[in-house]
Formats: sequence, structure tokens, C-alpha cells
Amino acid sequence: MIRADIMRCGGDMSELRTAACLAVGSELLGDARLDSNSLRITAELSALGVRVVEKRVVGDSVDRIARAVEELLDGVDLLVVTGGLGPTADDVTREAVARALGRELRPSPEVESWIRARYAAYDRVMPELCLRMARVIQGSRPLLNSLGSAPGILIEVEDRLLAALPGVAAEMEEMLTRDLIPEVARRNPTTRVLTRTLLLGGVYESDVEERIKALYGDIGRENLTVLANCGVVRLVQSAEGDDDSASNSIDAVTRQITEILGADVAGIDVCGLEEVVIDQLRRQNSTLAAAESCTGGMLAARITDVPGASDVFAGGVVSYSNEVKESQLGVPVDLLIDHGAVSEQVACAMAVGVRERFDVDWGLGITGIAGPGGGTEDKPVGLVHFAVASSESVVARHRIFPGSRASVRLWSVHSTLDLLRRRVIGEEA
Amino acid sequence: MIRADIMRCGGDMSELRTAACLAVGSELLGDARLDSNSLRITAELSALGVRVVEKRVVGDSVDRIARAVEELLDGVDLLVVTGGLGPTADDVTREAVARALGRELRPSPEVESWIRARYAAYDRVMPELCLRMARVIQGSRPLLNSLGSAPGILIEVEDRLLAALPGVAAEMEEMLTRDLIPEVARRNPTTRVLTRTLLLGGVYESDVEERIKALYGDIGRENLTVLANCGVVRLVQSAEGDDDSASNSIDAVTRQITEILGADVAGIDVCGLEEVVIDQLRRQNSTLAAAESCTGGMLAARITDVPGASDVFAGGVVSYSNEVKESQLGVPVDLLIDHGAVSEQVACAMAVGVRERFDVDWGLGITGIAGPGGGTEDKPVGLVHFAVASSESVVARHRIFPGSRASVRLWSVHSTLDLLRRRVIGEEA
Repeated sequence: MIRADIMRCGGDMSELRTAACLAVGSELLGDARLDSNSLRITAELSALGVRVVEKRVVGDSVDRIARAVEELLDGVDLLVVTGGLGPTADDVTREAVARALGRELRPSPEVESWIRARYAAYDRVMPELCLRMARVIQGSRPLLNSLGSAPGILIEVEDRLLAALPGVAAEMEEMLTRDLIPEVARRNPTTRVLTRTLLLGGVYESDVEERIKALYGDIGRENLTVLANCGVVRLVQSAEGDDDSASNSIDAVTRQITEILGADVAGIDVCGLEEVVIDQLRRQNSTLAAAESCTGGMLAARITDVPGASDVFAGGVVSYSNEVKESQLGVPVDLLIDHGAVSEQVACAMAVGVRERFDVDWGLGITGIAGPGGGTEDKPVGLVHFAVASSESVVARHRIFPGSRASVRLWSVHSTLDLLRRRVIGEEA
Repeated sequence: MIRADIMRCGGDMSELRTAACLAVGSELLGDARLDSNSLRITAELSALGVRVVEKRVVGDSVDRIARAVEELLDGVDLLVVTGGLGPTADDVTREAVARALGRELRPSPEVESWIRARYAAYDRVMPELCLRMARVIQGSRPLLNSLGSAPGILIEVEDRLLAALPGVAAEMEEMLTRDLIPEVARRNPTTRVLTRTLLLGGVYESDVEERIKALYGDIGRENLTVLANCGVVRLVQSAEGDDDSASNSIDAVTRQITEILGADVAGIDVCGLEEVVIDQLRRQNSTLAAAESCTGGMLAARITDVPGASDVFAGGVVSYSNEVKESQLGVPVDLLIDHGAVSEQVACAMAVGVRERFDVDWGLGITGIAGPGGGTEDKPVGLVHFAVASSESVVARHRIFPGSRASVRLWSVHSTLDLLRRRVIGEEA
């Protein structure tokens, strides 16, 4: 058990440097769900210079939660617990935290009134069960939940801080940004960690590493993370300091990387290549349509994930059968017979066909063998032809992509978007 | 430190009941990646009656890994560590496990020869660095890695078992299924846990709970997990026993649930509604095409995720603009003007249009407002009209779906697939 001091109000407090995340919930120990709340928490904390050094998941057991709280609080400055704050019998985080800290749980009329008000707003009477949630740990600050009924907990334990937030993502997020992050910022007034993500298209992770490794000595290997995902590489830079120094140092590194990688850098702090492409086309008032075979609508779905995509994206055709390639895109039947559906000729005809029929500036065509079946010696699983058509030209590429059906499809989407991106800026891929 | 007995060969061993997963790697403590290996491990272990009771993630630090190994092995029968077995300086799992168990690390000529052979197969000379991976913990069994160079570790600690597997998913999976699972099965010779997942379409989680809660007493609340995801609910049943008894008891519960839920049960042990629908249509030799507006290709992409979808799916049109709805689907311009693009009339015209133009048996149409912008008082964000056309009729539904743009789109895909599913079996939605 951890000795709990009386909560101090203000005064000098030590900065928070390290944190741990503890997710509570037996459903997070099955084979279907992961604790994704910790990603959001980690992102917010790291911007304030707090590094997550451990994560745990335990089930709905007072013993296991209490033990985890004790062990974790012993090693970090900040512990963020999520889940187990609801009204049912298996929601025991409140009891477990109280036990780990050796503090009492007391009914709080104020919190009870919050919960009753929430039920009243929906014309419902609060079930007696909910009184469990109206108990407050001695010396803690209850956190209002405007999206659900379970209040959160913020509590100081000597120089350390413990927050218990709901497991429901939106409710967690509300308390994280409204209550916890301002408290962390108050304790870490000068430390700011900036991060910036450079999105690279059309490159391999190993090539990128090779080309930028000369920079590691200067900027520190730990300040640059390389994340690859089927034809897209993200370089995550980070820099610590006050606002100006962090910002200057991150700018300098961005310049160095951009000098080395040139047009391989597709965008800065963007969600993906689709966002880059939509932005490019919007700026030049161009429009786009896509003809997809092996990707079966994935490329269109990715583009239309972006709010406002309708400014540039007219739509597309998923031409899964040869008949549809012919009837909906005007791919000549001769091409299909002579070269097969998976060929450069057909990819080009699809791009040209969708461009003409949808009356847009840019047309995309993708045809390939995503697997697992359908490969031959000449045309193995993973072979994909993709093309970009404009009023002036049609350009095609082909690659044999590695991995499963899902990864071949994802490589195809990324590679086609990147080919378009490079055509638009006039940089040959 | 845990006292380590000499490894016993065979003999009577106690069954393994509880397990923990420990993922090692600083990249798993950032804001971009989760430890997904644990899901696969959990699924395999639970089939043998071993329940995962805790998960942890720690960075590449000997101290932190060793402490986690000690704490976890103290409370469970089986500990599965993943990651940190590679050749570089930050791969320290081997050292940490040796320290936690108080055992020596010794060079193994056999393991060295495995690693050298792997490099030789690629015409490369093994870097000296790799000798780190050729050290074996006293009393452990090294596990061959045929997909990478890092060997795994299997080691008995008194009655408990510790496995250390690579972090790369494919390499982890190889050792899990080839080495660890057979060892667990040998120790748990009679216990088998069967699981079965009933997929429900077109239902709310809370309604499902309400309708089946009378069964909980009989079958045990813990043997039935309800997982909901934007219009699809999965009921995961589990039963423990020998093969026959588990299978009988799971069959009985399936019958009870199916009696209550009837046509809401879309499939058993299937990946999703798309798999159900493809299977239905394949059996009746029918074909399908889809016209999508707000879902922008997501429905087609989901369908073509399924290998062999081309047997039934001809393709589709993403008609993101009104012009494309008119030119590619033949939606009368009057309908668009009189009722707006988001209307029952347009959803029906899209379904009918794609069915005719793609010359298929079934046509789908979806049009809605996915948000975040674009809503009005009459047509709020989340309003989606969806329709199914056959040779005989066209049926439309509309709903106001909750949540973000992504969740409105997902609800739309699920609801449209479910409407099709019910039309095909002649069960009104």
C-alpha cells in the first residue's frame, strides 16, 4: 500500500516525467479487443514531455487492479487508469484504487446530483445501482462526465498523480482534454515536446533509413521514428524545449530531411496520401475519378474518407468483371483478349475510360492479382498494373507487391495515389 | 528473483490455467502502435483452456523487462514474452529473462549454426552482432526461426512455463503454433475450450442483451460475450470440456439463441456480413452490383476483401457527384432536383440503375450525409437512405446513424448488406 498524503492545493510541485497506462476490463483480455485509449493518452502526454514507460491491461478484479496500481505508482510520476468506473457489479476500479491508496470511499451528494441530473435529462429515474458511482475517494477530485454517467477521478499521491477515466473512448477523451491535460500542463509549465510527421510515398523503409542515417548523429536517433505501412513511410520527428527552441530545432531537421528525400516527401502532418492528393487537386481546380479492379473500391473509399473530398472526387467504377470493364469503362475487348485483364494496356484503358466517362481531369486505373488464388507463372499473385491518365498523357507502372491479399490491395492503393501525386507536381516516379 | 529448478523432462506436470502476455519494445509505447500479437496468442491459448489474466507492454530496458517477468511469473502459469530477441543493442529480452530467472546465458554452437545457415542461404555473411542471438539461457529450449534470424526461447520455471517469441508477427506465429501450443496441449491434455461466434445484423446491442438475458442463468454470463460494432453484433459463445461435451453444450446454446433471435442471426463463425451475402448469392447463382454515394466505395471494398468475391460481384459505381449519378447510373435529373441526392427516390434509382447497367440480379444503392458538414434541419448528418433492387422489386430504408463520419459510413455499409441478406432469404427487415 502506498502512503497517501493529504492533497496539496497548488504550491511547488515536481514536474511529471514518466507515466503508465492501466486499462481495466476483462473484454480487453480476450482475442478481439485492444486497449486503444492508451494511444490517445500517450499522444497528449508526450506533447507535454511525459513519456509512457509501461502499459498494462487487467481484468475486472479488485485484487488485480489494486496490485497493478500499487506497482505502477511506485515507478512513475503519473498513472492513467481507464475503465471499470460504471455502475455494474464488475466495475470495481473505484474500490481498487481506494484500496491501493489506503483511502476511504465516501458518498458525495454533489456527484450524486450530477448523476441524477443526467438521468432526469433523459426523463429517466436513476437506478439505485448508480449510487455506487457517487462515492468519492477521500482527497480526490471527481471529474464530470457529460457524455455518460460514470464520473472520473483525479487524485494526488505524494508528488505523483493518478487519473481514473472511463473506458468509453469519447468519455475518456472528454476528461483527458478538459481535466487531466491542463493539470499536467500546469505541472510541466516549460516543457513542450513538438512532433511532426513527414509522410513519404513510393519508398521502402530500408532505403529511407539508408539515406537519412547520416543525420542520426546530429539529431539523435531517438528523436526520429520510422514507421512503414505497405508503400507509405512516416518519419516522426520530435524535439523538446520551450515552444521556440523546439520549433526551431524541428524545422531545421525537416529541412535536412527534405533536402535529402526531395519529392519523396509527400506531406507534413497529413493523414495520408489521399489527403495530399485531394489538396493538390483542389488547389489547381482539377477533378478526379478512379477505375478499380483488384482494389475493389478501396482507393475510392480512402479518398472519400476525407471530409470535403467531393470538391475534387467525382466518383469511380469498380470493374471487377471483364464485362464491366468493357461496358462501363469502354476497355476494348481486344485488349482484354490479347493482353489479359491484368496488363499495362488494360490499366491504361481503364484510367483513360473513367477519365472520359466521368468527364474529369485525372483518371486512375488499377488492375492486378491480389490473391491468394489466381496467380500464374507469368502473372504471379501480387502483380499489379496501375495507371494515371490526364488530358496530355497516360502513364503506367507495375510492381509485384508482397504479402497477403489485404497488403497487396493496400500497396496498390498507396502506389497509385503516389503515382498521381508525382504526376501532378511533374516529378516522375 | 525466482528460484529456477532444473528443467524436467516429461513426467507429471500441472495443467496451465492462467497466462500473461508481455510485449517488449519502445515502439509499442508510442502513440501509433499497439501490441496486436497478444490477440493471436490469446485466441490459441483460450482454445486450450488457458485464460490470459494480464497484459503488459514495457520498453527495451533490461531492468523493466526483468521486473515484469518476475512479477508476472509470480502470478500465472504461463508467461508469453514477445519482442526484443533481435541482434541489435536495444534487443535485451534474452538478458532480462536470464536475469529474472537467475540463470546464465551461454553461447550455443547449435543455435549459431542455425543463424549462420540462414545468412548463407541469402549469400550473406553473418555479422558478428548476430552472435548475441546465439546465446541460450541455461536449461531452456531454443526455438528455430525459419522466417527470420532471431531464435525463440521455451523454458520451464518450476511448474510454470515461459516462452519468449519474436515481435515480428509471422515469426511469432510460427513458434506459437509449432512449439508453444503443442507444449501447452501436452500439459492440458483434456481441457478444450470451444468458441463459436454468431454474427447478428440489423440489431442494437442493448436489444440483443434484453432478448437473450433469460439464458444467462443457464449458460453462465461469462460464457457469452456480446461485441457490437456499428450495426453488427457478435455473440461469442464458449464452452469448456472434452471435445464432445464442449461441442454438445455449445450446440445447445446456439439452438436456444437462434430460437430467440431467428433471422437476426446472419451467420456462424463468419468474418462479416459480406461473407454471408456472397455465400447466399453464390448458392443461388445470383450476381450483385453496388452504387455508392456517402460510403464512397467502402461497401465494394468490403465485399472484395473476401477472396472469390468475383463469383458474384460484378462491380459498382461510386457516384459521388450528381452528374455521375445521372450519367453513370441513369438517375433522372428530376428526382435529384425534386427530392435531393439524399432521398429514398434517389437511393432506389441508384439501386435500379446499377442493377440494369451492370446486368446483374441484385443492385444496391446508398446515399446519405456522412458529415461532419452538410447536414440541414430536414436532413441531418447521419441520415442515410439505402435500397436493394431485384428483378421483382426495390425496397428502401432510411436511418439516422450516430457518431463520426467513419461510423456513419460503417453503419451504412452494414445496414445495406443486412437489408440485402434479409431480402435474399425473404425475411423483411
